[in-house]
Amino acid sequence: MGSQSVSQIAAAAKTASLALARLSGKTKNAALLAMASALEANRAGILAANRMDLEAAKKENLAAPLIARLALNEAKVQGMADGIRSVAALPDPVGRRLSAMEMDAGLVLYRESCPIGVIGAIFESRPDAVPQISSLCLKSGNAVVLKGGSEAQHSNKLIVSLLTGAAGGVDGVPQAAIQMIETRSEVAEMLKEDETINLIIPRGSNRFVRYIQDHTRIPVLGHSEGICHGYIDRDAEIDMALSVALDAKLQYPAACNAMETLLIHQDIAPKILPALFERFQREQVELVGCQATCRHLPQIGAATEGDWDTEYNDLKLSVKIVAGLDEAIRHINRHGSGHTDTIITENREAAERFLNAVDSASVMWNASTRFADGFRYGLGAEVGISTNKTHARGPVGLEGLVIYKFKLIGSGQTVAQYSGEKARKFTHKPLPNPD
Amino acid sequence: MGSQSVSQIAAAAKTASLALARLSGKTKNAALLAMASALEANRAGILAANRMDLEAAKKENLAAPLIARLALNEAKVQGMADGIRSVAALPDPVGRRLSAMEMDAGLVLYRESCPIGVIGAIFESRPDAVPQISSLCLKSGNAVVLKGGSEAQHSNKLIVSLLTGAAGGVDGVPQAAIQMIETRSEVAEMLKEDETINLIIPRGSNRFVRYIQDHTRIPVLGHSEGICHGYIDRDAEIDMALSVALDAKLQYPAACNAMETLLIHQDIAPKILPALFERFQREQVELVGCQATCRHLPQIGAATEGDWDTEYNDLKLSVKIVAGLDEAIRHINRHGSGHTDTIITENREAAERFLNAVDSASVMWNASTRFADGFRYGLGAEVGISTNKTHARGPVGLEGLVIYKFKLIGSGQTVAQYSGEKARKFTHKPLPNPD
Repeated sequence: MGSQSVSQIAAAAKTASLALARLSGKTKNAALLAMASALEANRAGILAANRMDLEAAKKENLAAPLIARLALNEAKVQGMADGIRSVAALPDPVGRRLSAMEMDAGLVLYRESCPIGVIGAIFESRPDAVPQISSLCLKSGNAVVLKGGSEAQHSNKLIVSLLTGAAGGVDGVPQAAIQMIETRSEVAEMLKEDETINLIIPRGSNRFVRYIQDHTRIPVLGHSEGICHGYIDRDAEIDMALSVALDAKLQYPAACNAMETLLIHQDIAPKILPALFERFQREQVELVGCQATCRHLPQIGAATEGDWDTEYNDLKLSVKIVAGLDEAIRHINRHGSGHTDTIITENREAAERFLNAVDSASVMWNASTRFADGFRYGLGAEVGISTNKTHARGPVGLEGLVIYKFKLIGSGQTVAQYSGEKARKFTHKPLPNPD
Repeated sequence: MGSQSVSQIAAAAKTASLALARLSGKTKNAALLAMASALEANRAGILAANRMDLEAAKKENLAAPLIARLALNEAKVQGMADGIRSVAALPDPVGRRLSAMEMDAGLVLYRESCPIGVIGAIFESRPDAVPQISSLCLKSGNAVVLKGGSEAQHSNKLIVSLLTGAAGGVDGVPQAAIQMIETRSEVAEMLKEDETINLIIPRGSNRFVRYIQDHTRIPVLGHSEGICHGYIDRDAEIDMALSVALDAKLQYPAACNAMETLLIHQDIAPKILPALFERFQREQVELVGCQATCRHLPQIGAATEGDWDTEYNDLKLSVKIVAGLDEAIRHINRHGSGHTDTIITENREAAERFLNAVDSASVMWNASTRFADGFRYGLGAEVGISTNKTHARGPVGLEGLVIYKFKLIGSGQTVAQYSGEKARKFTHKPLPNPD
């Protein structure tokens, strides 16, 4: 670090990735457990480094929520260690046999999961992200180059050196498995390293992710916006609709899977809007509505065109009355961000149409959008939520950090034997999969 | 076409893709069979259009191999129709249930395959690519925007209009499912349409694919180079090694999976090199070698540093003697293109090390690199061969044209119920998968 150029760091990561790909699950877990213990053993040092970051942040008048995300305490450091141990406890995502096929007698094709290679992880202030991302990358056999927020530089630097020291102390684990860069100009350099870095994972604000996406040819896993919708169908059960809508907006308004727009079927709108208004007002949620909504609720403000494309991340909700399911689907596919959308209805046919036609990573029926999350989905650990249409979509667990390779095992076969007259024929017989 | 701007075409494709995603397998197959029949019914017209392309190509003194790839005949048109019918015969890749999990009583999470959306397919002269790519995209529920080589413009234009007419005549299939652009400036425009186009599939020369990769933020599926290796281990059976090496180089030297470099263990080199030279010379393959190889075979030329990074696609092979397996692996990971590499050995341990450590899409043991192909791998139809490290790798079939979505089906659950004291617990119980 420091004296190395970004391309040297990336090259070292590439070399490390080849060694990491060959590690056994046992070795990787030993490294993870050592990493967890190293954090626990150096709690005081980590908190001291964090205090330096906090003092600098206060001097620079950082906003209170940013300072809150930056601040560590004993429990948070313990949480980091526990998080690493829970990653160690997950099944090894590498070397899983995904399919097996006899191409001919003595010629068998396997497809097996393997690491992607080198991951570039760029994130804003939270130091908790360092052990989390590092442990997910190590578990999946990938080398990682980290860039944290400059606000957390003292914390991050110490945490990375503890993790690297602990992991590197385990026989076979390369020192360059986990590396860090520190400056913005280094990020710009890293985004150009498309020959060595295989995937960029950004975590942070919409603007931040959008910037990353716009400045690299390396595939980016993530999402910039989370404009999530609820649609209350004509055949919705009213109490359920209210309860799901409130949860989707309020359970954690700053989350990317919180609801930003509520669409309501015109036939149910008169029945549900007064109660909806009352409940949301009680929770201090500002409502803005389409013209029809405002006719029912003259107390609320009018939504502008821009409102339908806005992620508030706050106690605000735009409400629109639609003629029916088709208009709801069209609205979501036009204004949504492909993240998470839910329909509330007792009508199975309408629900199935919605689930198939809404082009989003997570589509739901009678459930809160807030469920779209790696832990709730049972993925164990979450890399992030992706609105990509390739590789990995929705909440992404360790399987988003692996790809596969084909292994063909023969006994001297040539393609010429399968060509022309008297050609041997492929059997293409699927074999039972031991995994 | 023609009067529409590329962004209008892309927007129409996006709208069409939403309709295509909802089509049944039956409807898609009806469209595919209509497409096949339309080509058969218009054989004469297609050949007439092709003659116009051929005349222009001759006037412009196109190279003979290019003209050969451009030329159609009765059999090739029949081949196009047969190809479409074989795509129709494949299982529907859309709507496959990939996993099912009970998150709690009455709260079930499914992961289901679905189309990617809009595919941009850019390819050089062969008109056969038009029906092939169009049928694969339609089968997988994707809209496609095609750009063929300008040499084939008359053929392509007629074929696209026949396919569009036939598919669009089937109830529910949107006209804009298959569209075409015609000029290079339109390609440049298309590469900017990252809001609507989800995946670019280029087919053509290394330079052509590299150009595409360098000029778009849209994910690109494919490979630019195929620098494939054979490694003859110390414990190789000599006759097998010769036969696989000859096949890998000669069965079709212009293919991307043909061998370009042969690595030989130093202990077996003296035993195998004379026979190898004799056999390759008989087939008019030019050999160039490292210094050690040239000491054994003074008749051959010396390889330059550049040779190890060169895809000859021709009757030429570079030969290098290595100290052992580790040097072979290092050489391949450094100079290879991650496409296909094979080891010839009777030693299982060496083979397994090679298969795990070589970071390529296809790794083989005692088999010719020429097997790396969608049809031989039993994928049914091939989109292309990918050296990407995300989404799809190696020979890619229809599964490379789909992604997945999560469908969560509840009964009114909220996330608040699973938080805080008295929180409900997730069961995360995998359910049997009906597919």
